[in-house]
Amino acid sequence: MVVVADLLFNRVAFIGIGLIGSSMAKRMQEECMASEFVACARSYETRKKALDLGLVSEIYDDPAKAALGADLVVIATPVGSYSNIVKSIASVIKSNTVITDVGSVKQAVIDSVIPYLQFPRKFVPGHPIAGTEFSGPEAGFSELFEGRWTILTPDINVDKDALQRITNMWERMGSKVEMMSPGHHDMVLAITSHLPHLIAYTIVGTATDLEEDLRREVMKYSASGFRDFTRIAASDPIMWRDIFLNNKEATLEVLQRFSEDLTFLQKSIRRSDGKSLEELFSRTRDVRRDVLESEDLT
Amino acid sequence: MVVVADLLFNRVAFIGIGLIGSSMAKRMQEECMASEFVACARSYETRKKALDLGLVSEIYDDPAKAALGADLVVIATPVGSYSNIVKSIASVIKSNTVITDVGSVKQAVIDSVIPYLQFPRKFVPGHPIAGTEFSGPEAGFSELFEGRWTILTPDINVDKDALQRITNMWERMGSKVEMMSPGHHDMVLAITSHLPHLIAYTIVGTATDLEEDLRREVMKYSASGFRDFTRIAASDPIMWRDIFLNNKEATLEVLQRFSEDLTFLQKSIRRSDGKSLEELFSRTRDVRRDVLESEDLT
Repeated sequence: MVVVADLLFNRVAFIGIGLIGSSMAKRMQEECMASEFVACARSYETRKKALDLGLVSEIYDDPAKAALGADLVVIATPVGSYSNIVKSIASVIKSNTVITDVGSVKQAVIDSVIPYLQFPRKFVPGHPIAGTEFSGPEAGFSELFEGRWTILTPDINVDKDALQRITNMWERMGSKVEMMSPGHHDMVLAITSHLPHLIAYTIVGTATDLEEDLRREVMKYSASGFRDFTRIAASDPIMWRDIFLNNKEATLEVLQRFSEDLTFLQKSIRRSDGKSLEELFSRTRDVRRDVLESEDLT
Repeated sequence: MVVVADLLFNRVAFIGIGLIGSSMAKRMQEECMASEFVACARSYETRKKALDLGLVSEIYDDPAKAALGADLVVIATPVGSYSNIVKSIASVIKSNTVITDVGSVKQAVIDSVIPYLQFPRKFVPGHPIAGTEFSGPEAGFSELFEGRWTILTPDINVDKDALQRITNMWERMGSKVEMMSPGHHDMVLAITSHLPHLIAYTIVGTATDLEEDLRREVMKYSASGFRDFTRIAASDPIMWRDIFLNNKEATLEVLQRFSEDLTFLQKSIRRSDGKSLEELFSRTRDVRRDVLESEDLT
């Protein structure tokens, strides 16, 4: 017997159809979560690819055309573009349209979106903690969210039905869903994601400034540590530019703590203080165990 | 027809039998590179494990007993222990004994070893660029060096036969062998390996200092960037303490460059200078391509 899962939405409009949007579209189609999928993308190339890949049945260059008649709008563009998008779709949003997003920053997103919404209780801010270093509609795959966390940061007055449907949607993507305040989300992500990306970008940037000979050898012998950083530092430049500009406070705060710790370590090396180094390196080893245990528990 | 490969050595003595020593022992046995394998280890536990795993036929707590009668001595302990080891084995080293090592730092190693060697031309300093975050004899596996680089940094007057046999040994481990000056090796590795490890240790250390609630959530949502750092920062503490103490100059130099670049990025975020961020993030993306291409070529 084939069980036909309930439709969660009728018409879903993706504003932006890169890695995250295309992965969502694939999975939502597989799971029959909606009957119609449309999107909006700025570049002709992306629009063509999204159609060729069968991700959506219609694709537009104007967000308002995509959002027209949709009962779910998913904003999946770099977070810096949100306020313009919401301004341009505001007039076609109906009282039954649920709006969500997938941005890596939440407080700034909410602040830039809410003023333009006639039905703010239908906005469910979200962030699937999943991704790869690849971007564009061809990078998407339907298992991207499998076993990964999705954090929702709704207002206390959020529409309960909208929240329930967005929660169901992510669970049917294979994701584990948690609620959190936007400010807390931004601090946790500043540490787990934004600072590591900033550091990786910096270290890879430092290497590109080397003299040509040395630079070539750094690429050649990159296996030991550096290689991992190059993968992280290959992430989408516009997306990450917007993350840092929109999570400035939290990023600068954890960066400050990091810099102090790095200065301490630098001093320890300069002074040949082996005891301090060993103490830190032993402490950080335990963290790996905590991380792996945390994964086993969930 | 079974081809029996030539024996490269008769008795091989591993001084230290952790991840690298045990991986070498396994592969050398599989490839029949020598007829007898012995080792020395400080702890009873390691000695018992190495015997139980069949890595060696004899194991001692005294380096001199292991080195006695060996025609190859492989020093595979943290680099800070080298001078004491060479002091203690000096009297049993014969004119036909080849000595090599696997340390991640080369100039300091050479400076600490050479004064105690009666036959310095038989010393072939080496560094297989391979490893995992695990340590101890049970962590070893015979494919560890497959397709990876091994850098040899011999003196210009090195014994040609010794160099040839060490080169053959690494090639039969599956490794690609390159020659380099010790100082150049130390600078390349400071960038590709030592700085990334230092940064990873720092960032994971910064996270462990967080308030308990935040700390728990950082572990839970570590997927996005931070998780890679925890793996790197789980590497052997003593080994890495010794690397930083023995590659102080190069590490501090690249750390200085990194800190300047990080300060620039910090300023860009504080000033909301999106153009600078985007420019850097685009530049670093190209490095990933260079790294992958460099791997394809080799």
